[in-house]
Amino acid sequence: MVDEQPVTARNRRFPVDRHQGLSDGVFAIAMTLLVLDIKLPAGLSDDITNARLTAELWQSVRPSFLTYLLSFFVIGSQWMAHHEMFHDIRLVDRRMGSYNLQYLLVIAVMPFPSSVLADHGDLPVAVALYAVAIGLGGLLRARMQSYAVNNDLLKPSVDVAAWRKDTRAAVFFGLLFVGSAGVAYVRYWFAYVLWVVVLGGWAVLSRSGVWGLLRDRFARR
Amino acid sequence: MVDEQPVTARNRRFPVDRHQGLSDGVFAIAMTLLVLDIKLPAGLSDDITNARLTAELWQSVRPSFLTYLLSFFVIGSQWMAHHEMFHDIRLVDRRMGSYNLQYLLVIAVMPFPSSVLADHGDLPVAVALYAVAIGLGGLLRARMQSYAVNNDLLKPSVDVAAWRKDTRAAVFFGLLFVGSAGVAYVRYWFAYVLWVVVLGGWAVLSRSGVWGLLRDRFARR
Amino acid sequence: MVDEQPVTARNRRFPVDRHQGLSDGVFAIAMTLLVLDIKLPAGLSDDITNARLTAELWQSVRPSFLTYLLSFFVIGSQWMAHHEMFHDIRLVDRRMGSYNLQYLLVIAVMPFPSSVLADHGDLPVAVALYAVAIGLGGLLRARMQSYAVNNDLLKPSVDVAAWRKDTRAAVFFGLLFVGSAGVAYVRYWFAYVLWVVVLGGWAVLSRSGVWGLLRDRFARR
Amino acid sequence: MVDEQPVTARNRRFPVDRHQGLSDGVFAIAMTLLVLDIKLPAGLSDDITNARLTAELWQSVRPSFLTYLLSFFVIGSQWMAHHEMFHDIRLVDRRMGSYNLQYLLVIAVMPFPSSVLADHGDLPVAVALYAVAIGLGGLLRARMQSYAVNNDLLKPSVDVAAWRKDTRAAVFFGLLFVGSAGVAYVRYWFAYVLWVVVLGGWAVLSRSGVWGLLRDRFARR
Repeated sequence: MVDEQPVTARNRRFPVDRHQGLSDGVFAIAMTLLVLDIKLPAGLSDDITNARLTAELWQSVRPSFLTYLLSFFVIGSQWMAHHEMFHDIRLVDRRMGSYNLQYLLVIAVMPFPSSVLADHGDLPVAVALYAVAIGLGGLLRARMQSYAVNNDLLKPSVDVAAWRKDTRAAVFFGLLFVGSAGVAYVRYWFAYVLWVVVLGGWAVLSRSGVWGLLRDRFARR
Repeated sequence: MVDEQPVTARNRRFPVDRHQGLSDGVFAIAMTLLVLDIKLPAGLSDDITNARLTAELWQSVRPSFLTYLLSFFVIGSQWMAHHEMFHDIRLVDRRMGSYNLQYLLVIAVMPFPSSVLADHGDLPVAVALYAVAIGLGGLLRARMQSYAVNNDLLKPSVDVAAWRKDTRAAVFFGLLFVGSAGVAYVRYWFAYVLWVVVLGGWAVLSRSGVWGLLRDRFARR
Repeated sequence: MVDEQPVTARNRRFPVDRHQGLSDGVFAIAMTLLVLDIKLPAGLSDDITNARLTAELWQSVRPSFLTYLLSFFVIGSQWMAHHEMFHDIRLVDRRMGSYNLQYLLVIAVMPFPSSVLADHGDLPVAVALYAVAIGLGGLLRARMQSYAVNNDLLKPSVDVAAWRKDTRAAVFFGLLFVGSAGVAYVRYWFAYVLWVVVLGGWAVLSRSGVWGLLRDRFARR
Repeated sequence: MVDEQPVTARNRRFPVDRHQGLSDGVFAIAMTLLVLDIKLPAGLSDDITNARLTAELWQSVRPSFLTYLLSFFVIGSQWMAHHEMFHDIRLVDRRMGSYNLQYLLVIAVMPFPSSVLADHGDLPVAVALYAVAIGLGGLLRARMQSYAVNNDLLKPSVDVAAWRKDTRAAVFFGLLFVGSAGVAYVRYWFAYVLWVVVLGGWAVLSRSGVWGLLRDRFARR
């Protein structure tokens, strides 16, 4: 306890380990439950030819497999960000714990929008539902980051300016995904294009030196 | 080992870490398994219109989603309380371990009453089953708290008076939920109203200063 | 590394933490997956009366719920024993790790015999399958205990005589359960009676002082 | 941080604990989810004879049980290798974390090819799918090992020559399994024979002294 206030149930602070443990459990299950959507059609006989099974794998299984890849990538990226965020956090109070649980709710629920997207990936409402789930995850993480920096929950070694910049980036990506839900109602594939362009562009920029240059610029503010 | 008694299998004491690890695993799975109840109707064709899918999401999926939200909130709150309780515990003996397993049984079983409530939320027996599960969780946690303080399992820094007060609160909420099972047989929605009023009132009171004042009063006893 | 032999891949020794972590994960899932067998009949309409739902809960759900209780108790007891065993283990080599994985295989598979027992608890083959699974778990744990004590994997503080005695008890219970599989073919309920008598007797004896007296006798050998 | 380069988001290094925790979660679930494929035929009545249930267990359940054994063995072996690998790793940077997530994707997806193999184990495409999944796992692990040694992520005590040799072995087994996918298209059982011969031969060699001699030879290079 670092502050002078009297310690009550509301402002008690706890180590991060069990928050990390519970989070890792939820992430691991959300990553793995998705695989239950990858399956052959239910009525398939055991006595089919190799050509038939190949066709089933290609036609029935491929869409859900591709969605699985997308979702694993998304949840995995969320885990990486969550992991890096909590690495910088020293203590967690009750409200921060609640925020983390709300964030985990979105992670845990991800298999449902993914499953809807796998079956109805060409319908705006399916794309929008998925986009809102992803975006909400980013926004809830941004709220945690913002709360942590404003309530003295970070380790002393953390670069607060870089932390705030990462928070703004999470807000930006969160709003972008939520916004792409609207775009999906114009043409459903507009949303896909938007995701690929933004995420792809971000990946390319961060691999090249350009992003670093922009980063340094922002960091200097 | 702090006491002078000879150490036998029955009074050996263990560190809390694996008890916490197993508990976090069970909590994470109980939180996440519930999402398997959120799904589109089984017979739904892949070639449906956007309007149809929207209607299905609203009519078929919304009830189970709302139950999921309720249950995630309940299990999440249980986790918070379990986390804060074990933070104050220094060692666990065999009986305490058994009590924790019994508590985890109730947590693990939660997806079933939640699923019944999602499908039949207007039937007294469904409401009562859910209420008993929640209430039993609170009572089993209270038993652990009571056992820990009476058997010298707490860390020296723990405020024993506050600990006993929390235990009484857990008993109160536990009995309230078990009692609401009876209320559900009068009118099923009486139980919902009771939960909302008590939990909502508690949340408001603990946010305002009133609860703190009452708390201080009790603590002084 | 405590011995003088050259260190190779086969005799390298590792800390116990990840073995414990993986084990806790498998235990938590095995405990929780079982709950998926507790469900209302698939064809049940959403518009049923309270009396009908009560009857369904009593007739269709109760058997699987009772099996769930039994299985949770069994897996929970296995976890307690596994936890206490690993608490005394200092290091794990590759073979010990393999033994633990084989043990976890039996734990992970437990939901299947439990599910068969829930549906066909009056058929000898269902009872026998369950008995063999439980018994095998005990025997594999005994093998780990035996291997650990014979290969210098225990902490120095461990009472080796008590450890060997516990190992013999695990072998005894393991053989008893495997043997009860045969008994089930005479009358299926003979096996249930045997389990209740032996486990109940053991619980009563260990709560009373009798067991302690016998224990001391054995320990003196 | 051991190097002189400026620390950026891309070259920050993190402790291994959460990577291990998430990995153990995914491994535990992948090991345990597979058991959901072991079940009695859906339409089976509750009022069947003992002979009928025995026949169902033998004919319907045995194939999926044997696949479960195979898959548990495979995932278990992967876990052992992952565990031993991470034991030697000191720090994880962002790219190493991504590689680990990609590896976990293959582990998490294993229940699907296993399930296909259980139902259609005599069709080349099912065997090939399984072989590619296993092989890919080995290759992705080899990539992690290679990256770790080339980017100074190992503990100082690690024998780099032995580490590189293990990496080559993982590449060899990975390519062998991917290659056996082609063999399955000649005769599906050629692949099974190949797996048994190679894995069996490796097990025998490593138990006898021969492997150690070869090992020493390679290590001297």
